Amino acid sequence: VRISPVNSAQQASERTLIRRIASYFAAISGRNSGLRLAIGDDAAIWKPRPAFQTILTCDWFLEGTHFLREIHPPEAVGWKCLARAVSDIAAMGGLPRCFLLSLALPGSCTGNWLSGFLRGLRRASAKLHCPLAGGDTTRRNEILINITVVGEVELGCGSLRSGARPGDQIFVSGRLGEAQLGWKVAKRSRGLGGDLEGLLKKHLYPEPRIELGRWLVQNKFVSAMMDLSDGLSSDLARLCEASGVGAAIQRKDVPLSAGKFSSAFSEKSRLAAALHGGDDYELLFCVRKDKAKRIPPKLHGVALTKIGEVTRKRSVQLVEVSGKVGLLRPGGWDPFQS
Amino acid sequence: VRISPVNSAQQASERTLIRRIASYFAAISGRNSGLRLAIGDDAAIWKPRPAFQTILTCDWFLEGTHFLREIHPPEAVGWKCLARAVSDIAAMGGLPRCFLLSLALPGSCTGNWLSGFLRGLRRASAKLHCPLAGGDTTRRNEILINITVVGEVELGCGSLRSGARPGDQIFVSGRLGEAQLGWKVAKRSRGLGGDLEGLLKKHLYPEPRIELGRWLVQNKFVSAMMDLSDGLSSDLARLCEASGVGAAIQRKDVPLSAGKFSSAFSEKSRLAAALHGGDDYELLFCVRKDKAKRIPPKLHGVALTKIGEVTRKRSVQLVEVSGKVGLLRPGGWDPFQS
Repeated sequence: VRISPVNSAQQASERTLIRRIASYFAAISGRNSGLRLAIGDDAAIWKPRPAFQTILTCDWFLEGTHFLREIHPPEAVGWKCLARAVSDIAAMGGLPRCFLLSLALPGSCTGNWLSGFLRGLRRASAKLHCPLAGGDTTRRNEILINITVVGEVELGCGSLRSGARPGDQIFVSGRLGEAQLGWKVAKRSRGLGGDLEGLLKKHLYPEPRIELGRWLVQNKFVSAMMDLSDGLSSDLARLCEASGVGAAIQRKDVPLSAGKFSSAFSEKSRLAAALHGGDDYELLFCVRKDKAKRIPPKLHGVALTKIGEVTRKRSVQLVEVSGKVGLLRPGGWDPFQS
Repeated sequence: VRISPVNSAQQASERTLIRRIASYFAAISGRNSGLRLAIGDDAAIWKPRPAFQTILTCDWFLEGTHFLREIHPPEAVGWKCLARAVSDIAAMGGLPRCFLLSLALPGSCTGNWLSGFLRGLRRASAKLHCPLAGGDTTRRNEILINITVVGEVELGCGSLRSGARPGDQIFVSGRLGEAQLGWKVAKRSRGLGGDLEGLLKKHLYPEPRIELGRWLVQNKFVSAMMDLSDGLSSDLARLCEASGVGAAIQRKDVPLSAGKFSSAFSEKSRLAAALHGGDDYELLFCVRKDKAKRIPPKLHGVALTKIGEVTRKRSVQLVEVSGKVGLLRPGGWDPFQS
């Protein structure tokens, strides 16, 4: 254990590991992100911009809980652990600025697995303009990852969960349930590794909706917003609770998966995935009725779909095509229920 | 796993857990720390102060690696996980401003264990003026903790590891090795729970040297600084490497443990603990020769001791009382060597 130090005269191999991580990220300059001091000291130093407030979020990504070493390629683990944490920044209408990586690894994973992981993480870091600021490493019998992302949003902007009011129109980005169906594909057919289109890509390499979140917030379109990480039924219930409202969702308007491999699933299972499947990292947002018609059907190639309306009645209802109304109960992911 | 959601109609119990954590911290206002939005949304919002830069650090605190559930009281786990992360902020001469808590728990620990943990964490949070900003929770078969601390230091201040120059005088705060000896005491005698003076207190409830770090940086006394978390021999080697220098430490000047129970240990084991024992969270700092005499022997009750000098020769030497010179090899904690 940590508390009984190793009296060894060997060169510290933790240092080697940290150097290796640093070398992977050396090409991604943090200067434009405000980073003044990255890996290698007691802490990182970052310079916030005037007229901005700082957004802080952290996320677990644990072997056996959030990914499986034998199914998920290390590149995808690297990409996804950062992308899903950045999604929380997008949900506040912010821009990611830098991140911290806490990594615990078995000795057997410090070779190829780590290289793949760092490649995927570096790709996400470059794509999302979110350089590595620092972190912590230790040895462990399972792979444990924790990511902290620091973001920024203009003072007085920022979209909370708590601003929805009765009459607001409810929108989602993208198509829902694809990540969940992608996970089914991944479990079934490990041979699909090379084909990353459609569902599988959505499961392995989700893309946080940063541009959309920025556009919505800068145009003051949203009254409330959050990202869909645990499934529409669970996440919408949280937004409604935070706002003290309810919602009525039109079943026919929920955008179901249409990506490659989707036809392999029945409409029923595509609907279930759309309502309860997690990991989509799309945005769920509410817009005052008078502004709702200014939301285009697509922005930067991402569909924006009105799926229902905020209600005074404090429950979440699902309106069937027939007009029949049922309750939409939270059926998404909850680690303490599994 | 995370990727197969639970289709359960029950109320989410993760929500209950998050509410419980939030209720423990409700009395500690984050307003003075710049917190604008804490627990309960996608992310926290924090307002940095003008003329300050932000310090970012994160730290693992894992059952079996950093603490043992059957030996370490949950209150101590709660206190220490935050205190040791804040120590990295102190080492930069900064003030802690807020923190994020990532917590993975077995279901069996959500009762008494969690209450004790939250009590200890809340006590540290209040004492260190570092309110809870947010975090992430999940279920796991072992207790996993990750703490991110956000701190601030004046622009242009901040003390790095890399500024030491030959001729600088090397100081440490406090007495070294006490946490390591405290760990030996804790292992031997679990009945000491109530008696938290001296060594045991140092092991269970370390106090980051925030005031000292601030004082040193605001008076521009230090050329290089870091905190002693892995043991003097390992940490000094890191400081020397970052600065491109070496050091000569006077064995007779190293401040050995003198706390309660210390007499139970031979001078040899007290010296070994002082040189290689980790977890002290004292500060190691270098001062230009002309400023060194302005360092008092004590500040706010904490001893400040000159233990050696920075050298041009790039090795760390230990000078015995006899004048004999030996190499001080890194013998502290390295998770990848254990």
